[in-house]
Amino acid sequence: MAPDRSQAHAEDRPVIACLLIVGNEILSGRTQDKNLAYIAKGLNEVGVQLREVRVIPDVRETIVKTLNEVRYAYDYVFTTGGIGPTHDDITSDCVAEAFGVPMVRDQAVVELIASYMKGRGEMNEARLRMATFPDGYELLPNTISAAPGYRIDNVFVMAGVPHIMQAMFETAKKSLKGGKKVLSRSVAVGLGEGTIAEGLAGLQARYRELDIGSYPQMRQEGFKVSLVLRGTDPRLLDRATAELMQILRDLGGMPVEEPVDSPQGEAA
Amino acid sequence: MAPDRSQAHAEDRPVIACLLIVGNEILSGRTQDKNLAYIAKGLNEVGVQLREVRVIPDVRETIVKTLNEVRYAYDYVFTTGGIGPTHDDITSDCVAEAFGVPMVRDQAVVELIASYMKGRGEMNEARLRMATFPDGYELLPNTISAAPGYRIDNVFVMAGVPHIMQAMFETAKKSLKGGKKVLSRSVAVGLGEGTIAEGLAGLQARYRELDIGSYPQMRQEGFKVSLVLRGTDPRLLDRATAELMQILRDLGGMPVEEPVDSPQGEAA
Repeated sequence: MAPDRSQAHAEDRPVIACLLIVGNEILSGRTQDKNLAYIAKGLNEVGVQLREVRVIPDVRETIVKTLNEVRYAYDYVFTTGGIGPTHDDITSDCVAEAFGVPMVRDQAVVELIASYMKGRGEMNEARLRMATFPDGYELLPNTISAAPGYRIDNVFVMAGVPHIMQAMFETAKKSLKGGKKVLSRSVAVGLGEGTIAEGLAGLQARYRELDIGSYPQMRQEGFKVSLVLRGTDPRLLDRATAELMQILRDLGGMPVEEPVDSPQGEAA
Repeated sequence: MAPDRSQAHAEDRPVIACLLIVGNEILSGRTQDKNLAYIAKGLNEVGVQLREVRVIPDVRETIVKTLNEVRYAYDYVFTTGGIGPTHDDITSDCVAEAFGVPMVRDQAVVELIASYMKGRGEMNEARLRMATFPDGYELLPNTISAAPGYRIDNVFVMAGVPHIMQAMFETAKKSLKGGKKVLSRSVAVGLGEGTIAEGLAGLQARYRELDIGSYPQMRQEGFKVSLVLRGTDPRLLDRATAELMQILRDLGGMPVEEPVDSPQGEAA
């Protein structure tokens, strides 16, 4: 199943990524993840498509096994969570085990963290763990709280706290080699999905290069549907969007194009 | 790897579940998932532990393969998304393929949907798809928009729209056979994670039956940490929480117990 990653950046092949969210607090429902959408959108900006996300617990065997499964199947893997100083922060140890490399201490990071800690607390063994990385790492600076994330091969290891993750991800993004960017158009209409379905299936059949999705939303006044067209060719998107508007008008709807990142979007 | 599910409800074995979120709109970052936390908490109420979540695209091979992987590895599997009337709603077809069963039409559901549609739109082929299920299904009623979800073996197939998913899930929950319920306690303190780490690791070592997590949050006034203890034995939780409070006081902190579902919770 593992693609030949030497082909990864061929013009015509999509560049694909997987996100591993490591954290019992997400699986217990205590914490709402805020990183998935940020990473998905950021990747798309540089032509990388997020194709899978797994939320897994803070369990060593699970993290190691999952990482080794996905790092061969995707061009890039991103992890969030589990790189702090406490006993439940085991992601880096698991990454080292997955790659079969030792953990090594980075003296410059020791000094960075020591400097950040001045007036905040003492340097200790726990904090030194955040200066220790799987051999082969390249740092992803953390402008918020000093302790960096890192890249090893095609895996980017980042914090779970959203502001810190974002700082690391912005550096990570610069090193990605993406393919064609996926463009989106979105059309909203006050028709039922079942009314639109046949025309929409026909449109999808005529535009196989596009991915057309239908996302209903519940409103006080009834259902509203957002129809989203995605693809890499802007002219094809223009044509398909115009056809879609006509199909919806013919069905008696009053379609309006809407911003792609509609905040009212709900899962279908 | 597949556990013997005949043992699933032995008192001493945790009952575990996996959630598959099917949807390109989540992977593109367009839509923020709102179902994970709801399902996680609901499962915990009946003694079922959510152990893995996968977000996968609307791709037939991926859905079939993933479903067949997880339905043997977990006691229960829940899916959200992809059971509407449009061409991109392929979850039920994939479930049928995964189980190797035909799709069958349910005449009572045809009439239910037809009745719901009166005054809203016409009954057509697309809407009839929502009355067609993999053979062996048991319905999960949908009090919001008529078209039901269903259960087949240990897999519960639900809508993606949160209100509709919730209606289906509340029925699903009643049929689950859970194990011991996981209880939680949460303590907040204004100390750095690195300061707490050693004492916390010691506590975790003394209470191996508990799962102790440390979740930092960024605030204007600096970092705050929530320490969450989880386990099935309330007396053990009481003791460990009391010890934790003392550890934090000895470090100069002013710990306070907080509601477990802290809305300020962030990923670690």
